[in-house]
Amino acid sequence: MRIEAVDLFYLAMPAITTEADGSQDALLVRVAAGGHVAWGECEASPLVSIAAFVCPMSHGVCRPVGASVLGETLDGPADIARIAARVEYDSMDLLQAPHMFSGVEMALWDLLGKARGEPVWRLLGYDASHKKVPYASMLFGDTPVDTLRHARDARANGFGAAKFGWGPIGRGDARADAEHFVAAREGLGPDAVLLVDVGQIWGEDVEAAAARLPALEAAQATWLEEPFHSSALESYQALSRRSTKVRMAGGEGAHNFSMARHLIDYGGVGFIQIDTGRIGGIGPAKRVADYAVARGVTFVNHTFTSHLALSASLQPFAGLQDHRICEFPFAPKSLSLDITRNHLQRDANGEIAAPDAPGLGIDVDPQGLREYLVDVDIRVGGKLLYATPASL
Amino acid sequence: MRIEAVDLFYLAMPAITTEADGSQDALLVRVAAGGHVAWGECEASPLVSIAAFVCPMSHGVCRPVGASVLGETLDGPADIARIAARVEYDSMDLLQAPHMFSGVEMALWDLLGKARGEPVWRLLGYDASHKKVPYASMLFGDTPVDTLRHARDARANGFGAAKFGWGPIGRGDARADAEHFVAAREGLGPDAVLLVDVGQIWGEDVEAAAARLPALEAAQATWLEEPFHSSALESYQALSRRSTKVRMAGGEGAHNFSMARHLIDYGGVGFIQIDTGRIGGIGPAKRVADYAVARGVTFVNHTFTSHLALSASLQPFAGLQDHRICEFPFAPKSLSLDITRNHLQRDANGEIAAPDAPGLGIDVDPQGLREYLVDVDIRVGGKLLYATPASL
Repeated sequence: MRIEAVDLFYLAMPAITTEADGSQDALLVRVAAGGHVAWGECEASPLVSIAAFVCPMSHGVCRPVGASVLGETLDGPADIARIAARVEYDSMDLLQAPHMFSGVEMALWDLLGKARGEPVWRLLGYDASHKKVPYASMLFGDTPVDTLRHARDARANGFGAAKFGWGPIGRGDARADAEHFVAAREGLGPDAVLLVDVGQIWGEDVEAAAARLPALEAAQATWLEEPFHSSALESYQALSRRSTKVRMAGGEGAHNFSMARHLIDYGGVGFIQIDTGRIGGIGPAKRVADYAVARGVTFVNHTFTSHLALSASLQPFAGLQDHRICEFPFAPKSLSLDITRNHLQRDANGEIAAPDAPGLGIDVDPQGLREYLVDVDIRVGGKLLYATPASL
Repeated sequence: MRIEAVDLFYLAMPAITTEADGSQDALLVRVAAGGHVAWGECEASPLVSIAAFVCPMSHGVCRPVGASVLGETLDGPADIARIAARVEYDSMDLLQAPHMFSGVEMALWDLLGKARGEPVWRLLGYDASHKKVPYASMLFGDTPVDTLRHARDARANGFGAAKFGWGPIGRGDARADAEHFVAAREGLGPDAVLLVDVGQIWGEDVEAAAARLPALEAAQATWLEEPFHSSALESYQALSRRSTKVRMAGGEGAHNFSMARHLIDYGGVGFIQIDTGRIGGIGPAKRVADYAVARGVTFVNHTFTSHLALSASLQPFAGLQDHRICEFPFAPKSLSLDITRNHLQRDANGEIAAPDAPGLGIDVDPQGLREYLVDVDIRVGGKLLYATPASL
């Protein structure tokens, strides 16, 4: 097959707020080849990623992502790897390239799966798609009472695991944070899995993070996620060594395999969290999953957007029976739900799995998206480089 | 002072080729505050970087770079650090942000220096701007005979050091590459410093790189630059351990302090090469210089563009007397030279130094730039987010 067309669609909620909620906009990627149409999604700034696809070449290794994709042959997984390697080399000086290419790569797997009538996880070499325990991913409340209510909501909705993130944590003192941890545990009850995500709030400051460890231990948190900048490996390592019960989690900022590997090898994380919409797609995420297995680290998806992104993010570890926890967007914006006709429904045990249907197994709903579509046009030197495609 | 305006200018040669020559286009940044006008330059895709400055917010930590800069107070170096920290946090999910912000940060230093009547290196805490030995930075020829001629040109032009990069190296076998190394040494003569840059050609492949070590040693190359992807720390380390005489150099791909630190600590490089147009500006580059001193590693600038970028890239190590070598664009495109009215001239010994004049000490020449100016406009949701400023 020949990659005939790659179309990009910028979708957004009518109003975007400053909350740390990545489901407020999306960049969908539609790829056409061999009579098939497939979809992917970038977890990245839509406008900047569009620019990275269409920008004029700056020099030999600062070329637009589109130049490495359009017209290429796609007949098997090796072609996806070849195209990815070409993007990595020819766009090495284009920083946004991995975020942009992630959505394309995802669509290439979807397309290949559809063409072969196979789910992507099988193309990756797995024999089965094992059930995962989804955790409700939500933000901390503004007050401990709000956090308590959020935790009870998660429990009432049948989640046996919940992750609380961002919000007030790290903005006041350790005691104020501890009240939120206590409230979260109280709302979830004693048996549920409690996960805490602080969104890089402490930069490189190990002491600030360490001051929260006793309260996290007391609340029996399974992990502390992103205490530091994603590249502050020394801080990760220092905190990992000081924490006996709570393990560190991180990796959503990884935009290539090596960054995830370094969080494992040098940062000492116990959980490596990969967003297939950022790391370059499903291929590099699978490579991280293999590496995590070899190093005794648990692979977890990072997903805060649509069920298209959710399916893509489950594929890299679908076949790993012991890597049980998965992120599940608990209360995304309507845009994020409306992107797809079908959704990954939790079964009677509250569990989900990567679909058995061909490709990513998710139907994108063009009709449902019209109202969110953002008109963009980019002109350079009098030439129209990008305009929102007329047909969705 | 209040940052009143930040204007971005996309400049390009009439034709852009696939050679690895970063001087073919440029993104200039003009900042106005307190009656002063100052300049910086991004070493990055101009269109994608413009998009990163003006894009709509996606969520709380995926905000446009402009939102962290416009209207901010600038009264001292601490303000630059504060603005940089804000960009780092509020744009943590905007991958292009460091490349974009680098040019702004450079201009903030230039502005502060102009306002105080001090060169930037003094604002960084240095007492003197020491002379550096510039190496002529050029590409390998297509054939060894071409490489020989380039080397003789450099020598005839009074350079006591030269770096050859990219071109055919790594695309054929080790023997073919060895002929280029021999030719470069022959053209330079026995006393000149020979540096070799291979532009990440071997990805992660240590054996392919190691196969070139004997010929590099025989040619008495001082360093081997970028044998691998900028994040392939394990490959850097493995090669560093196998090379007794030729030291590894790298770092131009670092887009934050940590990446440079990891090349030193985990990669074992002997020379850390920083582009202030990519790493986030002069502040993080100075932090790398301090770290390099502490670890016994030599700091070197990476500069392949204008003399504005060259001055900015010299500031972080201007006061380090023992860090002698500096990159000097030998044959940049006319655009790159026409950006500035003055240039860093080599003295009778062939040496250069960061200027003593206030700020970066470089006069940008708006008149000279008109012919290179690229018209851009970006519309999102019917709103014009960016148009090339009318006044240059």
